[in-house]
Amino acid sequence: VREATDAQLVLAVRDLPPEETAWTVDHLSPDDQQALLDRLARADPGLAADLLEHFDDSQAAALLREVDPAAAALVVIRMDSDEQADVLAEMSEAASGEILRQLPRTAAADLRQRLGYPDDTAGGLMITEIFRFDEADAVEDVVRRLREGAAEEARDGEGYRAYEVRYLYTTDAAGRLSGVVPMRRLVLGARSAKLATLAIRDFVKTAADTPVEELEDLFDRVDYSAVPVEDARGRLLGVVQRAAVQEHRGEAAEEDLAKTGGIIGGEELRSMPVGSRAGRRLAFLLPVLGLTLVSASVIGLYEPTIRESPGLAKFLPVVAGLCGSSGGQAVAVSMREISLGLIKTRDVGRVIRKEVTAALLIGAGVGLALFLTGWAWSGDLGMGLTLGFAAPPVMLLATAVGGSVPLLLRGVGLDPAMMSGPVVQTTIDMAAFLAVLAIAAAVL
Amino acid sequence: VREATDAQLVLAVRDLPPEETAWTVDHLSPDDQQALLDRLARADPGLAADLLEHFDDSQAAALLREVDPAAAALVVIRMDSDEQADVLAEMSEAASGEILRQLPRTAAADLRQRLGYPDDTAGGLMITEIFRFDEADAVEDVVRRLREGAAEEARDGEGYRAYEVRYLYTTDAAGRLSGVVPMRRLVLGARSAKLATLAIRDFVKTAADTPVEELEDLFDRVDYSAVPVEDARGRLLGVVQRAAVQEHRGEAAEEDLAKTGGIIGGEELRSMPVGSRAGRRLAFLLPVLGLTLVSASVIGLYEPTIRESPGLAKFLPVVAGLCGSSGGQAVAVSMREISLGLIKTRDVGRVIRKEVTAALLIGAGVGLALFLTGWAWSGDLGMGLTLGFAAPPVMLLATAVGGSVPLLLRGVGLDPAMMSGPVVQTTIDMAAFLAVLAIAAAVL
Repeated sequence: VREATDAQLVLAVRDLPPEETAWTVDHLSPDDQQALLDRLARADPGLAADLLEHFDDSQAAALLREVDPAAAALVVIRMDSDEQADVLAEMSEAASGEILRQLPRTAAADLRQRLGYPDDTAGGLMITEIFRFDEADAVEDVVRRLREGAAEEARDGEGYRAYEVRYLYTTDAAGRLSGVVPMRRLVLGARSAKLATLAIRDFVKTAADTPVEELEDLFDRVDYSAVPVEDARGRLLGVVQRAAVQEHRGEAAEEDLAKTGGIIGGEELRSMPVGSRAGRRLAFLLPVLGLTLVSASVIGLYEPTIRESPGLAKFLPVVAGLCGSSGGQAVAVSMREISLGLIKTRDVGRVIRKEVTAALLIGAGVGLALFLTGWAWSGDLGMGLTLGFAAPPVMLLATAVGGSVPLLLRGVGLDPAMMSGPVVQTTIDMAAFLAVLAIAAAVL
Repeated sequence: VREATDAQLVLAVRDLPPEETAWTVDHLSPDDQQALLDRLARADPGLAADLLEHFDDSQAAALLREVDPAAAALVVIRMDSDEQADVLAEMSEAASGEILRQLPRTAAADLRQRLGYPDDTAGGLMITEIFRFDEADAVEDVVRRLREGAAEEARDGEGYRAYEVRYLYTTDAAGRLSGVVPMRRLVLGARSAKLATLAIRDFVKTAADTPVEELEDLFDRVDYSAVPVEDARGRLLGVVQRAAVQEHRGEAAEEDLAKTGGIIGGEELRSMPVGSRAGRRLAFLLPVLGLTLVSASVIGLYEPTIRESPGLAKFLPVVAGLCGSSGGQAVAVSMREISLGLIKTRDVGRVIRKEVTAALLIGAGVGLALFLTGWAWSGDLGMGLTLGFAAPPVMLLATAVGGSVPLLLRGVGLDPAMMSGPVVQTTIDMAAFLAVLAIAAAVL
């Protein structure tokens, strides 16, 4: 990176296959990453903006923070408008303020306003590169201006490239959103017609603070590729695209996957500083230690039983592990049904009934397997019977708890992806230890 | 459902808020669901098609399978073309064959061809409702035909509603895809110009067998909302839309979440038959039983140690549980980095180095916590020291194994979402039991 000329750098980045871009840059040393972006920002800000779009928002923000604010501003201005707000939102107020001060006044004001919307609302997901015309404009004027824009695009490669050109949006004299004109109507309309006569008046629109879940439902219902966003006073702010809503859904599901594994916030990457990574992981592990100690205390109660039959010790993690896995399956199905909109908190009873039916079959299978294993391994029929009888009731409990806990956590406003695992695991461990040891104390 | 008239049913379904639709229908009894769809299919097939799009493909297929094939065919024909293939692919050959036989010959042939493409390729994701014109057509002819289509749309509500109207696609005399005409050029072009003179010749296209991962990269790189799909002989088959690719990505991440929890295939819903649900879950649990028995055998080796210090038995699941959670965190970060394209199989060494640095901090924290807990709870300094010294090396191993196993599994072509958990858990359990018991045998 250091030895190449600017032109060589630009060519090298431009020629990277897209599926290799993130990987290649991520594998440079932090100093080289910074040097690369710094020089690219000056030499070809558009290319630097494209490069950043290959990264996670937090990673793009980390890279951009190290660049001189004046150069960073040139890069930001070339990014898609929804991406601009996402990346700046990941920076400290001071760092994003530095960059905003370098932008032209109107662009900065516009971006500051969009920074005010959470990134899981229509305001945070919308783009502002849209065709906006006065409803009193005639088709021929609009076509002329589009033609000028197209000429500009041919000249400098910018212009309408990023525009959502399926619809034009019309505003009334007060600047309020008044209609939507599909491109098709512009093609088919008379040249002298006013946009107002062509516009669809009864169109679907949304407010800037609409949450992304509602937008998902909206796009499920309508066939439009984009829906206009207005503020509280009816002024057109931008459009939110179907693609942006679906991209957000994909990212949310990926973060849920990370949270289920015990990553707080769902956002760790190995390029983050080691202290913050270790801190976040410990913040999850120490409460888990507390919970495992609670379930271990059940074993502590039965120390005399274990002293008499130390062979039991090896079967405790087996029964707990199996029933824990079964509970994890029920958690997974509930998480999936929640995300598909098939169950709500009040369905707890129904979920438990459905789980219990399945668990009768699963418990019978697992109980038989444990009976045979326990008997064969220890040569002691009592041990086999202990395990075989302990497993099915714990299995029933495991699936019922696993199926219902994500719903209950969501019902009280907690994040089921993060919390379901430890809560379910602790409950099942306690039940498994108690069932095996209490039956053993009676039988052995 | 049974007592309502057809008109009442149609109105009731039409008035459901979209976010309630899936939930409401899912909460009817299976008989009522079938009766509803059966009658809706006859009374308003378009509405029945909309209803099915609220469901998962497998659930939509299950509902449609119960409807008379002639009525089902009317519903299928109203669905979006990418959805048609997805739903029929979830049915048995016999059931989908029945429906295909009811369709007009060309529609059936078209759909059969699309059923041949796996649903994670361009062929499986594409829609076929596109504007396709001969490149020798003049702008005025094209506009006239679009106008006729629009009139048809106004008449019966179908027509171009679902069409991707941002681009027209041109074909040459041999029917091969020859160019793309943005709607804008049609607006701005001379009425007598041939499409061939307006078309972009150097456009982005893709083959029907392109996997969805490559399509994601493609849409990362280009700004188009849709890209045309051609067969091996260059004939235009359809277009794949950015939105379809991103929707697929969201579904894949959700299925990964379910697989991580131990749901084979990632597709269980509680509306499926109980036998198939229990079977799939057992198919995951029985191998897990085998793996837990392997790690339990380590405890079996140290039975004399446990007989002497039965207090150890309660700490074994604590150490194994904590180190297992830590391994799960490393798995989660690797899964996330894989999905973001930041790591590949050859990065195993780098991942392990990054994990080990974090694990030194985490291991020190957890080791200290376990030393204090063990000492305080048992009143035995030796027990505290055993736990405190056993934890850090197991922690190092846990993060290194957790971080690298998803990469290695992917490298040999196995599904990391499904297999990482059990493999990592077994390794860590064995290491934790061995470390604690071996140190205890020496110290206590």
